[in-house]
Amino acid sequence: MTNSTVKRSAKPRLSTFARNLLEEWRQLELPLSEASVVVAVSGGADSTALLLGLDELIKANKLRLELIVAHLDHGLRDESRNDAKWVAQLAKQLGYKTEISRANVKKSPRLKTKVGKSKENLEQAARNARYTFLEKTANKTHSNLVLTAHTLDDQAETVLMRLLRGSAAEGLSGTRAIRELAPGSPVKLVRPLLAWARHSDTEDYCRRRQVAFRVDVMNDDETFSRVRVRKQLLPLMKSFNNRVVEALNRTATLLNEDVVALSGESRRLLELAVNEPQENSETNAPGLRVNVLLQAPVAVRRRALREWILRSRGDLKRVEMVHLVAVERLLQGERGGRTAELPGGITVIRRRGMLELSHKKRLKKPRTISKIPRVRHRR
Amino acid sequence: MTNSTVKRSAKPRLSTFARNLLEEWRQLELPLSEASVVVAVSGGADSTALLLGLDELIKANKLRLELIVAHLDHGLRDESRNDAKWVAQLAKQLGYKTEISRANVKKSPRLKTKVGKSKENLEQAARNARYTFLEKTANKTHSNLVLTAHTLDDQAETVLMRLLRGSAAEGLSGTRAIRELAPGSPVKLVRPLLAWARHSDTEDYCRRRQVAFRVDVMNDDETFSRVRVRKQLLPLMKSFNNRVVEALNRTATLLNEDVVALSGESRRLLELAVNEPQENSETNAPGLRVNVLLQAPVAVRRRALREWILRSRGDLKRVEMVHLVAVERLLQGERGGRTAELPGGITVIRRRGMLELSHKKRLKKPRTISKIPRVRHRR
Repeated sequence: MTNSTVKRSAKPRLSTFARNLLEEWRQLELPLSEASVVVAVSGGADSTALLLGLDELIKANKLRLELIVAHLDHGLRDESRNDAKWVAQLAKQLGYKTEISRANVKKSPRLKTKVGKSKENLEQAARNARYTFLEKTANKTHSNLVLTAHTLDDQAETVLMRLLRGSAAEGLSGTRAIRELAPGSPVKLVRPLLAWARHSDTEDYCRRRQVAFRVDVMNDDETFSRVRVRKQLLPLMKSFNNRVVEALNRTATLLNEDVVALSGESRRLLELAVNEPQENSETNAPGLRVNVLLQAPVAVRRRALREWILRSRGDLKRVEMVHLVAVERLLQGERGGRTAELPGGITVIRRRGMLELSHKKRLKKPRTISKIPRVRHRR
Repeated sequence: MTNSTVKRSAKPRLSTFARNLLEEWRQLELPLSEASVVVAVSGGADSTALLLGLDELIKANKLRLELIVAHLDHGLRDESRNDAKWVAQLAKQLGYKTEISRANVKKSPRLKTKVGKSKENLEQAARNARYTFLEKTANKTHSNLVLTAHTLDDQAETVLMRLLRGSAAEGLSGTRAIRELAPGSPVKLVRPLLAWARHSDTEDYCRRRQVAFRVDVMNDDETFSRVRVRKQLLPLMKSFNNRVVEALNRTATLLNEDVVALSGESRRLLELAVNEPQENSETNAPGLRVNVLLQAPVAVRRRALREWILRSRGDLKRVEMVHLVAVERLLQGERGGRTAELPGGITVIRRRGMLELSHKKRLKKPRTISKIPRVRHRR
């Protein structure tokens, strides 16, 4: 008995929270040693628990990482300076480096141009400022990982926000546990709580570690849709199914698997549909063979068309389902007309059994216009 | 002016409701003439509007169909006999045949065995009685089409009911506008309002036709989950997005397209994975090659496994995601064990690079058991 007690105190058992975190860390194939990792800590229960969990694993020698505690003061609340101080102090107590910065989100130029939806735009501007700060911090500290503390509850909220807009599987599959911080960036954004932790788990763990996390009053501001999803919609849904958060996460996981399979199929279709690369192509996107596209199911074809537009334009800004449907309609022959206009001055043209993509400037050359009769969509 | 008025009264213009109904009728490629069609009419706004819309199209000579108005009195409410009389009278006024029957749903044997969830089971028993009655009526009247009046609102409710359970794309894609009334039946169950009509459209159209539809008090009984979805959840969601019913229908349509593509892929995978049919196979399902299954994305593989089990068992009763995951795990080699148990006494066994499906009785033969060591799942 005494022997076992001594053993336990010499090598304390990991908490359930830390064990789950370690299991997920391994599942995501993250480095167990010799890595420098940025942890975004707002001071709320979720991010504080993430920091404390990592700290437990580091002190138990399960992880050998250099942590950098990053905190951005968005300057949106009176209390925010105190949050920053609190995070700095916690990090110091635990023995980690900190990167604290302050942004003036309200003065963001993007915000000024959009009136009327100010609260949601404020949230978006704050998020942008935060991710810019995290990327800078990662670069400065030579870190390849940035961690944020999204939980199962956040994922359920995201799924519902997307559902309210009528999203496809891509939207409803929610947030990824791991992705590039920015397109093409070597830095990975990782959410090591997303697959298993409830918000109540992070609160419990903070209490167990006797750390009084900070409370962000904006989390209770019901003028934000997300807060209203959390405070009104999810509780009502819980009255139908007590485990609705888990149910929504299950749906998100299954739909994500569908998206992976369908993306693979659509990339294969795109390869099949692309004609031999042409030397003097009018566009920077290769033409697609209509007959090949027509053989694929619409779910695969539409994703292939979206990927094709993405590769040509570099982004999919303002490209909506309605545009993809218009391009789809071109495939149906004469009835669908011969051209479809996309946002950003791009036109898709069907000619000689091919779909071609033209940037508007080029289309304005008289020679080109005369070759392409502009037929209106008929239905 | 006079001339045009005369023309209009001689050949009245179709109502928007009837025009939309006709457009959907064509979209679904339903027969325009020489068909006998059963219309299920409860007397509520939706089914009354469906009947009136078909009546308008028949009298305008757009459809040349023989309508049979079918009504089942479930005997659950005091008013139900009056509903039956009302439907019979309306059909008579319009000049169509009727098939009215009465069931005693409360005495259904299935209902007696399940205590505690009586309301939901009552709903299920009523639905079963209704579909049995509709199938009988179709057979009796030599009809190949049975129409029901589900609307966009019903579809949105279905999507939410499934979401509350954490369904996959199959569940979230809702109800089909056209399907077999029973598996293998030549009779099609068609929902010609599903793709376009709101409940408010059916009410408006009934009023326009000056027909005072019946109101089912059970539609207001909030002890039914579906009623609570309609009365509480959808209105709250509408406060986020006024067009949430349309949004949910959009999601259902998109996910249905995904399901079509993924089902096609999974059938192809199953064909690829099946070994040559064996003469003396122990089971009635052919074995599947593990290496072929492993090359497919999990979304396709899982659907192929489900289809494989369906073909062997004839149904998927009580087969849940957890069972598919257990079968999946067999593919991962030793770590996943060598057998997985499915409901209904079915065991899936991995041996010599194949997945095989055995019915338990056969496994109980001593010879077979000795060959298959029962390894517990480890994780």
